[in-house]
Amino acid sequence: MKNNRVAVIAAGGSGSRMGASLPKQYIKIGGEPIIIHTLRQFTACEFDRILVLTPIDYVKYTTELLKEYKISGATVISGGKTRNDTILKAIDFLREQGELDESTILLTHDSVRPFVTKRIIEENLEVCASLGPCTTAIPATDTIVMGGAQVEEIFDRSKMQQVQTPQTFKALRFEEIYNSLTQEQKELATDCTRLFTLAGEKVYTVLGDVANIKLTYQSDIAFAEGYVKWQRGKTESDK
Amino acid sequence: MKNNRVAVIAAGGSGSRMGASLPKQYIKIGGEPIIIHTLRQFTACEFDRILVLTPIDYVKYTTELLKEYKISGATVISGGKTRNDTILKAIDFLREQGELDESTILLTHDSVRPFVTKRIIEENLEVCASLGPCTTAIPATDTIVMGGAQVEEIFDRSKMQQVQTPQTFKALRFEEIYNSLTQEQKELATDCTRLFTLAGEKVYTVLGDVANIKLTYQSDIAFAEGYVKWQRGKTESDK
Repeated sequence: MKNNRVAVIAAGGSGSRMGASLPKQYIKIGGEPIIIHTLRQFTACEFDRILVLTPIDYVKYTTELLKEYKISGATVISGGKTRNDTILKAIDFLREQGELDESTILLTHDSVRPFVTKRIIEENLEVCASLGPCTTAIPATDTIVMGGAQVEEIFDRSKMQQVQTPQTFKALRFEEIYNSLTQEQKELATDCTRLFTLAGEKVYTVLGDVANIKLTYQSDIAFAEGYVKWQRGKTESDK
Repeated sequence: MKNNRVAVIAAGGSGSRMGASLPKQYIKIGGEPIIIHTLRQFTACEFDRILVLTPIDYVKYTTELLKEYKISGATVISGGKTRNDTILKAIDFLREQGELDESTILLTHDSVRPFVTKRIIEENLEVCASLGPCTTAIPATDTIVMGGAQVEEIFDRSKMQQVQTPQTFKALRFEEIYNSLTQEQKELATDCTRLFTLAGEKVYTVLGDVANIKLTYQSDIAFAEGYVKWQRGKTESDK
C-alpha cells in the first residue's frame, strides 16, 4: 500500500523575537515572503496533501498570498498554540476529510526554514516509510557545552548533532503517544523527536544542510538575503 | 598592575572545505577580505599587541594585505599545524620580544569569524582578568542530540550552549597546562575550553552573538554577503 504523504508546514510564529509587526514567515527575502520560498520546495515534491497552519488571524491573508505567488495545491488552516497542538489540528483536519489511515505519514516543517531541499524532504519520507520516525539533523558545527555562566560539561563534538526540520512520523502513532503522556510529559515533548523517544521508540536521523537554518533574528534575514542572491546567481550560471 | 593584552588571530585555515584555491580567510565579502573585516574589530579595541598567525606561505601576502587595507598595529607571523601549536607559537614570539609575563592575557579568535563585536571582545578581557579563563558561547539555537544514524540522547536545550570564539586565558597558564598533558590528552584538547577543563579549572562563558558564525562553507560566504550589506545599510541609516 502506498503511504499517504502529508506535509505539515507550521507557520504559527508571531515574530516577536524579530521585533517585526508582521509574523516573520511573511517577511520578504529576495522579493518573496519566506513562507513562499518554503512552499516552493514542497510543491516540487510528491505530497497527497500540503497543509499550512497559521495563526487564525492569518488564514485568509496566507491563502491570498499563495494565490498571489501562484502556489497551488496547499491548504491553509488555523494551527494551535504549541507545535504539538498544531500537529493535532492537522490530524483532525485529515480525519474530517477522510484522508487519515494507518499509512498516513506527516512530514512536519518550520515555515521559517526556507532553504530546506527536495533531497532532504524525500529522504525524510523514505526513512520514515522504511525505518520509522525521523528527524533532520546536521553534525554540530560548533563545540557544544552544557552550563550557564560556567561551563559544566564539554561534549565530544563528533557525536553531537543539531536538530533541524523536517521531522517525519506516522500520524496515528503520534496521536496515540501524545494522548498517553502525562501533562508534565506533554510540556517536555515540545519536539517530535523527544515525544517518540519518551515512548521508547527509535528516532532516525536524516542529514540536513548547514543552510537549512531557522530564520529567527533580524541578522538571519540579512544572511538569508545574501543566500537567496547567491542561489539565483548559481542557477543562472547553470543554465 | 595592568594586564598585558594580546589578541591572537588564528588564520591557519587552508580553505579545503570551501573548495576554494585561496584559504577562506582571504575570500572577499562586501569587497574586503574576511580577515580584514575581522581585524577591524580588533584594531577598534585596546590591545598591547595584535598577532595574526597564518600558514608560512601566507605571511608576506597577509602583511601586504594589511598594508593595502590600512590595518595598522597588527603583526603577522607563521602559525602551527594545530590551534594549540599556533597559540604556543604566539607565546614564543611574545617571550622573544620580552612581552610575556604573569599578567599576559591571550584573547584567541578565528580569523573567519568576522562578525565578532567590540562588546564581545571587551567582555572576554574583563571576565578573564576578573574571574579566569573564558569562552564565548550562545544558547543553543537548535535542539541538540547525541547520536549517529539514530538519536541516542536528547538534551535539555535550555542548558546547552554553542561555543564560539574569542576564548581568553592567561598565556603562561596555558603553556603550563599544555606541557603537563599526555600526548593523548593533547590530541583531545583541541579547544582551549577543554584544555583548561582537563586541568580542573573553571571556564566562564561570555555571551556571544548569533551572527558571530564561523565562515566554513560556500553557503556561509553567501550568508555573510547579505549580512555585510545589511550592516552597512544600518550604519548609513544611523547617521
